[in-house]
Amino acid sequence: MFEARLGKTALLKKIVEALKDILKASTLDCSDSGIQLQAMDDSHVSLVELSLSSEGFEKYRCDRNLSLGLHLDMLAKVLKCANNDDAVTISAQDKPDKVLFAFESQSKERTSDYELRLMNLEQEHLGIPDTSYACVVRMPAVEFARICRDLAMFSETVIIACQKDSIKFSASGDAGTANIKLSQSVIDEETQRVSIEVDEPVTLSFGGRYLSSFTRATPLSEQVKIGMAVNVPLLVEYAIENFGYVRYYLAPKVDEPEA
Amino acid sequence: MFEARLGKTALLKKIVEALKDILKASTLDCSDSGIQLQAMDDSHVSLVELSLSSEGFEKYRCDRNLSLGLHLDMLAKVLKCANNDDAVTISAQDKPDKVLFAFESQSKERTSDYELRLMNLEQEHLGIPDTSYACVVRMPAVEFARICRDLAMFSETVIIACQKDSIKFSASGDAGTANIKLSQSVIDEETQRVSIEVDEPVTLSFGGRYLSSFTRATPLSEQVKIGMAVNVPLLVEYAIENFGYVRYYLAPKVDEPEA
Amino acid sequence: MFEARLGKTALLKKIVEALKDILKASTLDCSDSGIQLQAMDDSHVSLVELSLSSEGFEKYRCDRNLSLGLHLDMLAKVLKCANNDDAVTISAQDKPDKVLFAFESQSKERTSDYELRLMNLEQEHLGIPDTSYACVVRMPAVEFARICRDLAMFSETVIIACQKDSIKFSASGDAGTANIKLSQSVIDEETQRVSIEVDEPVTLSFGGRYLSSFTRATPLSEQVKIGMAVNVPLLVEYAIENFGYVRYYLAPKVDEPEA
Repeated sequence: MFEARLGKTALLKKIVEALKDILKASTLDCSDSGIQLQAMDDSHVSLVELSLSSEGFEKYRCDRNLSLGLHLDMLAKVLKCANNDDAVTISAQDKPDKVLFAFESQSKERTSDYELRLMNLEQEHLGIPDTSYACVVRMPAVEFARICRDLAMFSETVIIACQKDSIKFSASGDAGTANIKLSQSVIDEETQRVSIEVDEPVTLSFGGRYLSSFTRATPLSEQVKIGMAVNVPLLVEYAIENFGYVRYYLAPKVDEPEA
Repeated sequence: MFEARLGKTALLKKIVEALKDILKASTLDCSDSGIQLQAMDDSHVSLVELSLSSEGFEKYRCDRNLSLGLHLDMLAKVLKCANNDDAVTISAQDKPDKVLFAFESQSKERTSDYELRLMNLEQEHLGIPDTSYACVVRMPAVEFARICRDLAMFSETVIIACQKDSIKFSASGDAGTANIKLSQSVIDEETQRVSIEVDEPVTLSFGGRYLSSFTRATPLSEQVKIGMAVNVPLLVEYAIENFGYVRYYLAPKVDEPEA
Repeated sequence: MFEARLGKTALLKKIVEALKDILKASTLDCSDSGIQLQAMDDSHVSLVELSLSSEGFEKYRCDRNLSLGLHLDMLAKVLKCANNDDAVTISAQDKPDKVLFAFESQSKERTSDYELRLMNLEQEHLGIPDTSYACVVRMPAVEFARICRDLAMFSETVIIACQKDSIKFSASGDAGTANIKLSQSVIDEETQRVSIEVDEPVTLSFGGRYLSSFTRATPLSEQVKIGMAVNVPLLVEYAIENFGYVRYYLAPKVDEPEA
C-alpha cells in the first residue's frame, strides 16, 4: 500500500510542469524515505533529478518500494482539474497497474478522483557523483528564466562567465551580440538577490535550449542555484521548501576543433 | 414596427454567446409577449430554447409578429463593437429584410448603428412537453462548466448519477477514469451552492461534447439547473433574471446492444 | 560619436511598435537636432514620419550626421529584453556598421547590452508639404483604434465624413452596414474628449487596412489628431510628449469610374 497526501495540489502542479517539457513519461520511485525520480531528457543530453522527502507530506505511507511509470502530460491534465488549494492524495496498491489521484476541496463539498493506468518504462539509474563547484551563484529564478529567454533570440549557444562579484551571460549570432551582466548585490540580508561565490573564475558554453527547458521549474522557488566547474556538468537547482529539490545537469559544449 | 431597448448590451452579448456555438444561424420570433427562439443544434442532436419576456426590456413594441433570421456569428461581431454598458435598441419594419442594432454610450457622445441583412431560414417548431424530472439539481454554473471541461479529457461519454445528497459525473477512457462528486451543501441559505432534489435515483449517459457546448451560457446565471428522468431528455437551464431563460435539452445515450 | 540616453525604455518600445507593422526595416537619421525617420510603408501606399527632438533625451550627443539602418522586428525583440523602466543608451561610432543598445536597471544590479548589425537601406526622402486641413478632429486614440477595428468587419473601405460638431465613420459590405458617430463633447476642459474644427465639411474614403496599421501607435498618446481636406492625404498624428510625433499620411480612395 502506498499513500501520500499533500495539503495543496499547487505544489504537485509545479513539479509536474517542471518535468513534463523534458520528459514525456517517467517513473516515480517511491520508498519509505520519499519519492525520487531521475532521468535523462528525451534527447539524452541533460539529466533531471527530483527528490521529495516523505517528511514534507501531510501523510505518507509506503509499505513496499514501488515504481509508478506515468505519462506526465496526462498527469498534468489531471492536475489542471484540481484547484490549487485542493488537498491531493496519491495512492496505489502493492504491485500496482494503476495509480489514484484523489482531490478534496477545502469545503469538502466537492471530491474527485482520477485513476491513471501505469506505464512500464525502462529505467537507467545513473550515479550522480557529489561535485564541488568552482563557482556557485544564487539569483532570482525569474531573472534566470528571463535571461535564457532573451538570449535565445541571438544564438543557440549561451556562454556563462562567472568571476568575482559578477556573472555574465552572452550569446552572439547573425543579428548581433547580447551580454547580460548581474552584479553581486550589496551585502544586506533582506535585499540580497544575487550572491556569487567564486573559488576560481569559470567560462563555459551551454546549449540554450536545455537551459530554457530547465526554467520551467521557476515557479518552484524564489531563487535558483547555479554551480559550475571545468569539465563537470552545470548544476541548476530549484529547492522545494520542506521537500527537497529539482536538479538539472547539463554538460558544457566542447569547442569544435578547427579544421 | 418592432422596437426593443435594453439598458445594457452586456446581456445581449451573453445570450448570443450562449447560442452561437450551437447554431450558426437562427430565427428570433418576436411577438407582443416577447422574443422566443427554438432550434435543434446544427447536428440535430440537442435542442435549445430561448425565452425573453417583453417585460424585461426598457422599452418594447411589436405591432405584428415577425421572424428575424440572423447569422449569429455576425451578430456576435456587431455586439463586440459595443461597450457592455451601452444601451442597445433593436428595430425592424413590418415584413423586414433587415434589422437595425443601434448603440448609445452612457455619455451619449458616441452612437453607432449596424444594419444586418436578414436571412430566410427554414424553421421547425417542436412542441416541448412539460416534464417532471425525477432528479433536479442546482449548482454553480461555473462548477458545471468546469466538470464538463475536465471530463472531456477522458471520454466523449459522460455518466451522470444522481442520488440522495450527491451527484456524480464520471468518464472513462484509455488514459484512465475520472469521477467528480458534488454533495448537497449544508442547509444554510447564504452558502448553499449545491441543492439536490431526488424522487428516485437516476443514472444516465450523455455526449460530453453537447454538455460542453451548453456551458457557453455560463455567464448568464450564477446557478444552473439540471433535470433528469429515465427516457426523457436531460434539461440544462440557465435563468435570465427578469427576462426568462435559455434551456438546452439532450437525449441520453442508449447503450449499444452487444453483438 | 553618437549617444542618446532615455530614462525609460518604455517610450522606445512604443515607438518601435508604432513602426514595425508598417516597416520591416528602416533608417533612423540622427543629427544634432534629434532623430528623424521618414518612409513609405512596405506596400508604398502610406507614409510614416517620426520626429524626436534631441531636447527630449536625458543625454544627447551627435558629432556627425549618421544613418542607422535597422531591422525593426529585431529591434523590437531586443527591447522586449529590457524592463519598461530600465534606462537605455543608444550609441554608435561615426561611420558605424553596428549600433549598441545598453540597458541599466534602476538598482544598477543588472546591466545588459545588445549590439545590432546595421543594414544598408535605400532611402527616398520625400518632401511633405505643409498643408492646412479643412477639418481637424482630436479624439481619444483608443476610440479611433476601436472604430478602425470594428469597421474592418464590414468592409475594406472606410468612409469618414466630418461636419460641424460630429465625425462619422462608415463601412458597408455584404453582411450589412455600420455607422459610428462621435459628437463634439460639451465644452468643459477636463472632460472634453472629442474636439472638431471644421472650415468646410469633408467626406472621403480610405483603405481600412492602412488606418488600422496606424493605430499601432495608440499607446504613444492619449489623443490622436486627424486632419482631412479634399485632394490631400489624410493626416493621423500621435504626439510624443517632450519629443515630437509620429505622423501617418494616407491618400483618399478615388471612386472607380463606372463602366
